[in-house]
Amino acid sequence: MKDILQRLAEGPIVGDGSMCMTLEKRGYCSAGLWSPEAVLLYPEAVKQLLREYMRAGADVLQTPCFYSCEGRLRRGNTTFTSNEINDAACKMTHEIANEGQDVLVCGGLSPVETYAPGKDLSAARREFEAQLEVFIKHDVDFLLAEFFNYIEELELCIDVMKKANKPIAVSMRIGPNPDHSDVSLEECTVRMAKAGADIIGLNCMYDIDTMLNALKRMKTALDIAGLSVYLMCQPLGWRCPDVDNEKEGYISLVEAPLAMEPRALTRGEVHKFARSAYELGVRYIGGCCGMEPHHIRAISHELAEERKKDPPVNDMCPPFTTLIGSSMRNHQKKGSKEFWLNVKPGSGRPHSSAYSEIESTE
Amino acid sequence: MKDILQRLAEGPIVGDGSMCMTLEKRGYCSAGLWSPEAVLLYPEAVKQLLREYMRAGADVLQTPCFYSCEGRLRRGNTTFTSNEINDAACKMTHEIANEGQDVLVCGGLSPVETYAPGKDLSAARREFEAQLEVFIKHDVDFLLAEFFNYIEELELCIDVMKKANKPIAVSMRIGPNPDHSDVSLEECTVRMAKAGADIIGLNCMYDIDTMLNALKRMKTALDIAGLSVYLMCQPLGWRCPDVDNEKEGYISLVEAPLAMEPRALTRGEVHKFARSAYELGVRYIGGCCGMEPHHIRAISHELAEERKKDPPVNDMCPPFTTLIGSSMRNHQKKGSKEFWLNVKPGSGRPHSSAYSEIESTE
Amino acid sequence: MKDILQRLAEGPIVGDGSMCMTLEKRGYCSAGLWSPEAVLLYPEAVKQLLREYMRAGADVLQTPCFYSCEGRLRRGNTTFTSNEINDAACKMTHEIANEGQDVLVCGGLSPVETYAPGKDLSAARREFEAQLEVFIKHDVDFLLAEFFNYIEELELCIDVMKKANKPIAVSMRIGPNPDHSDVSLEECTVRMAKAGADIIGLNCMYDIDTMLNALKRMKTALDIAGLSVYLMCQPLGWRCPDVDNEKEGYISLVEAPLAMEPRALTRGEVHKFARSAYELGVRYIGGCCGMEPHHIRAISHELAEERKKDPPVNDMCPPFTTLIGSSMRNHQKKGSKEFWLNVKPGSGRPHSSAYSEIESTE
Amino acid sequence: MKDILQRLAEGPIVGDGSMCMTLEKRGYCSAGLWSPEAVLLYPEAVKQLLREYMRAGADVLQTPCFYSCEGRLRRGNTTFTSNEINDAACKMTHEIANEGQDVLVCGGLSPVETYAPGKDLSAARREFEAQLEVFIKHDVDFLLAEFFNYIEELELCIDVMKKANKPIAVSMRIGPNPDHSDVSLEECTVRMAKAGADIIGLNCMYDIDTMLNALKRMKTALDIAGLSVYLMCQPLGWRCPDVDNEKEGYISLVEAPLAMEPRALTRGEVHKFARSAYELGVRYIGGCCGMEPHHIRAISHELAEERKKDPPVNDMCPPFTTLIGSSMRNHQKKGSKEFWLNVKPGSGRPHSSAYSEIESTE
Repeated sequence: MKDILQRLAEGPIVGDGSMCMTLEKRGYCSAGLWSPEAVLLYPEAVKQLLREYMRAGADVLQTPCFYSCEGRLRRGNTTFTSNEINDAACKMTHEIANEGQDVLVCGGLSPVETYAPGKDLSAARREFEAQLEVFIKHDVDFLLAEFFNYIEELELCIDVMKKANKPIAVSMRIGPNPDHSDVSLEECTVRMAKAGADIIGLNCMYDIDTMLNALKRMKTALDIAGLSVYLMCQPLGWRCPDVDNEKEGYISLVEAPLAMEPRALTRGEVHKFARSAYELGVRYIGGCCGMEPHHIRAISHELAEERKKDPPVNDMCPPFTTLIGSSMRNHQKKGSKEFWLNVKPGSGRPHSSAYSEIESTE
Repeated sequence: MKDILQRLAEGPIVGDGSMCMTLEKRGYCSAGLWSPEAVLLYPEAVKQLLREYMRAGADVLQTPCFYSCEGRLRRGNTTFTSNEINDAACKMTHEIANEGQDVLVCGGLSPVETYAPGKDLSAARREFEAQLEVFIKHDVDFLLAEFFNYIEELELCIDVMKKANKPIAVSMRIGPNPDHSDVSLEECTVRMAKAGADIIGLNCMYDIDTMLNALKRMKTALDIAGLSVYLMCQPLGWRCPDVDNEKEGYISLVEAPLAMEPRALTRGEVHKFARSAYELGVRYIGGCCGMEPHHIRAISHELAEERKKDPPVNDMCPPFTTLIGSSMRNHQKKGSKEFWLNVKPGSGRPHSSAYSEIESTE
Repeated sequence: MKDILQRLAEGPIVGDGSMCMTLEKRGYCSAGLWSPEAVLLYPEAVKQLLREYMRAGADVLQTPCFYSCEGRLRRGNTTFTSNEINDAACKMTHEIANEGQDVLVCGGLSPVETYAPGKDLSAARREFEAQLEVFIKHDVDFLLAEFFNYIEELELCIDVMKKANKPIAVSMRIGPNPDHSDVSLEECTVRMAKAGADIIGLNCMYDIDTMLNALKRMKTALDIAGLSVYLMCQPLGWRCPDVDNEKEGYISLVEAPLAMEPRALTRGEVHKFARSAYELGVRYIGGCCGMEPHHIRAISHELAEERKKDPPVNDMCPPFTTLIGSSMRNHQKKGSKEFWLNVKPGSGRPHSSAYSEIESTE
Repeated sequence: MKDILQRLAEGPIVGDGSMCMTLEKRGYCSAGLWSPEAVLLYPEAVKQLLREYMRAGADVLQTPCFYSCEGRLRRGNTTFTSNEINDAACKMTHEIANEGQDVLVCGGLSPVETYAPGKDLSAARREFEAQLEVFIKHDVDFLLAEFFNYIEELELCIDVMKKANKPIAVSMRIGPNPDHSDVSLEECTVRMAKAGADIIGLNCMYDIDTMLNALKRMKTALDIAGLSVYLMCQPLGWRCPDVDNEKEGYISLVEAPLAMEPRALTRGEVHKFARSAYELGVRYIGGCCGMEPHHIRAISHELAEERKKDPPVNDMCPPFTTLIGSSMRNHQKKGSKEFWLNVKPGSGRPHSSAYSEIESTE
């Protein structure tokens, strides 16, 4: 089986989508805590979601263990350890990947609460080593450290990950305003690449447009520095133009996290995003919070030609064409991608505005 | 185990939610065709969705066989018969109901394409009888005929259903403008009750506000006629005030059916709806297209006191309170229902409007 | 010179537009008080506005003396009497009408604060008689009693006006919800006609769409009663669909009266309104608060063919065609009415909604 | 009488507002041509508008001769020369200024069509000299060259203006994206100051927020260059955030120029703008297209304390307080500036969006 870097050399890779926030809507995760105990408590539900992403065309399944770090877990009521959760997450991801063909398993490392800017790094290093150990034991196909706010913490994590001798992907959530670390987006970019990551990018906190603009800046920074790595992008599944210049991203919206529904991306919007990301040179394209199976399927459909393949299970959901068989005349006419790229959806809410109030999260 | 009528006499019943449209997003149903072959092809996925509704507090699980009528099925590529599908649907619904406690199985009858206004009714009668046979065989707890546009067809169906000696619920999708049958909403209401239904109501096509207004009219019509039946209401999970006066409902929106995302209800909106429906006297409250597990959970939470119970699996998703444990200050303050009842969510789309263009569906 | 009734028999009449609210923006009227002392204090400004309406095509100039009743005037700081104001208003209206050709002067009577539902009518009758006396002295061409909330008060006023032997127009501001008088819109309509008015209609409080719907109901009521009078319509110059069912109309909007700008009608919207009103059978079409000279010009342009004339001074403002001479390519293409009928204007306010909060005015 | 520079040293100066676009709505200017023949054809109407600005608190009245350059005038049907128009404009501006106290007359120079980038400048120089001659003859108080797209043309104009020995103000319309001249906003700023202008700034094309952001950049550029001049700002009277990054500004909006109504500023928005501009260090604050008398009054009211004076005629329109005398309870509560600073006005248009389509103007 070709590894992630060989595949990226051949064409675009589709990532998977939202885990915690989608499981919460389905009843398997606690809003606010967002920790993945469900891998132990309700494994069937988590496996079903992984399966949906795989069927939709994800080339990679990430181990569903975000926020599985000790500090986080202690905040909820769980008595599980990070180690137990990660172990279960690895097993189930391999199980679902084996249901498909050529699906890679990605071991996901989370930032740790033992890290604090300017403090001693030894406790954080030990925590990353503990995370890594599980992924080595389960022989995942590559590693991804994501959701990082601090480049120093991420460099430390990269240094730890190198011991696994696996391809390394890293993804920060700093967006266009890298104020968590007071380091410019451009400097973060260069430092991620220099630290030894093979694939670098952004995830979470910002929407498709904001992220594409930030990725343009990253690409320019890499070009100027003469560095060559793959770019990845896993944005939110919501439209949030109003937080473009907010340091915290969507979590500072007054309606976050439980009334984000009206901002959910349509498939047409995801098709356009996937095309734009590809044209910009991004080669690993997936989703973060709010990006659900039908969104991931839209990425796969949009890039089917470049990837020389359709989603593996496409019988029921080819891109829009089954609408031609509708019993309604007006729906029959909507059986093309072009229609859905251009339609402007209404909000159905004349008392709501396009932009919301912004709050400090601190 | 108490039957549906005994339970309605004691307090409000929570129905389940969207099947076809939610399965489509998950990759298990074809847009435009909306037929339920997945019960045979991918039963685990359908069972998982049924399970989510049950865990969220649904007292009733409907057999997932909407549009399982011969005419419909022939339109897609399926070779399954309605009988095969309904059989599988009954089995899996019993299986999931048995995972819970005191959950009723409702056999769902669909309108048939052999019916046409003013035509001979014998073929339609035979088709209803065939549908019913499966539900009798599997001994469902009660029957629900829903999605009906024509009162004449529904009266025929009620007449057939009576043979089963089970409680009968019926639900039209005519909304405030009953033009499919050229019969007023008020007359339809009275005829449904007089034909022998124990529970009558509306489902699909219109949103929560439109449906509540229509139910007020139905209640008045029943009061005037001196009839006493239970009222039920299973509205869309989207806000569609712009089709209040459209005969076809949401399917006439230019963005229907695949770009409805911005109209999705928030939980706060569902809480308010459940309260209003209950106060109006509606006793069977569930959802139709677009109403997902977290919405059904919101109905259960809102009516927990009246129902003297919480959703059966509530550990991870009590109503909003886990937000108090968030690491973000502003989210910690959002751990109450009051906050979510009042927040106005932004659309994130400054180029979109609240209302959309309306198209004829014919 | 033909009188108003002869003209209405031949084709549509264009009324004038907003006085107090437009003068307020120009600096000549007090917000909240809305009384017309400017006719005495700053006559040139008032005359200029009358002139603008006349140039824009108004066939009628109303004497600018709205709210010139004693009770109202005492509320502000003015020491002028209603009599003094009305006298000056008559003089200046004749003066401006004489600048044009065939322009009629309409003496406008206002509701009085001495009227209260169910009370003795003699004081109110005296006040109406005093208002009328001035209009008889100045020999206005016809009379218009407008802004009335109560049909009883209006019937009294009609009874008084009959003494002048001039055509009588009356206009209520009750809109679709005639709750001020607890009398239905249909009954008000019939009573206005039976009391002896030659022209009846609605003005103020509601927008063009709401008013057209109400006028349809009035027309039906007249048809049923077998009555034949001319219909008139002088709506707001703002879009206010959110107060369709509010008894008080636009004044209950949270942003009324001084932040109504985003609701201002475009000319394309006024063109459509004028056409719809004409097609409905309305024959006296003008404007109330917010309807400014360019709006009145749009009514004249729309109905130029039916009226067999253009606005009297049309050199600089023919309908849209001068845009063809713009130095900007994209504006050159906008030199047709069709373009402006169809363009959807943005609000420029992503933080604002379409609908606003409604307040009680009491 | 103190000259403009002495006054600026003492506190903020209020400019006047929109001429052509407001006169067009009143029926005295041709859309698309926007030339000021009305000063000769209908002088009373132009004088009335000048008077309204003066009464509202404008310290300066500009001669109403925008686009009075030969090339422009030939495009319409007018046979007047630029010289005739400017002569009349000067006379009427002096006349109205003399109605007030201490009001300055500003001679306004327009860009000329004989200028083209990179071409010989002698014809343009002659045209500026001809414009200047009229202002010298009528002894205006200071000069303002505005609406300039090219810094080279403006430098030429400044060079010509110096001959008059009067204070010189200059204003470009380039906004944040100075692409007309391919010279950065910062460089334009420095060159305007170095060429000899006493007051420099921006006018037209962009809205209040866009302009304030551009002025911040100008201020920084001046600080870096160690230059000290007064800053001026005359923005649009409409909200246009959607053209922030458009080179042409509001004229590229699909609804420009005749359906801009929904974007019109409220007074509360103008109060906030005036305060922000003052705090940023801008000392000459007025308006361009769409900024009407009530908007200019709002600037005067906001800065009354800094200016140690109210608008000269303030009897009828003190800031918001007369609402206290309203007969409506809810309006009585709105008699404070605070209310109007915070109210969010609805658009009344559920079928419209916040942002519009952008077109190329070329």
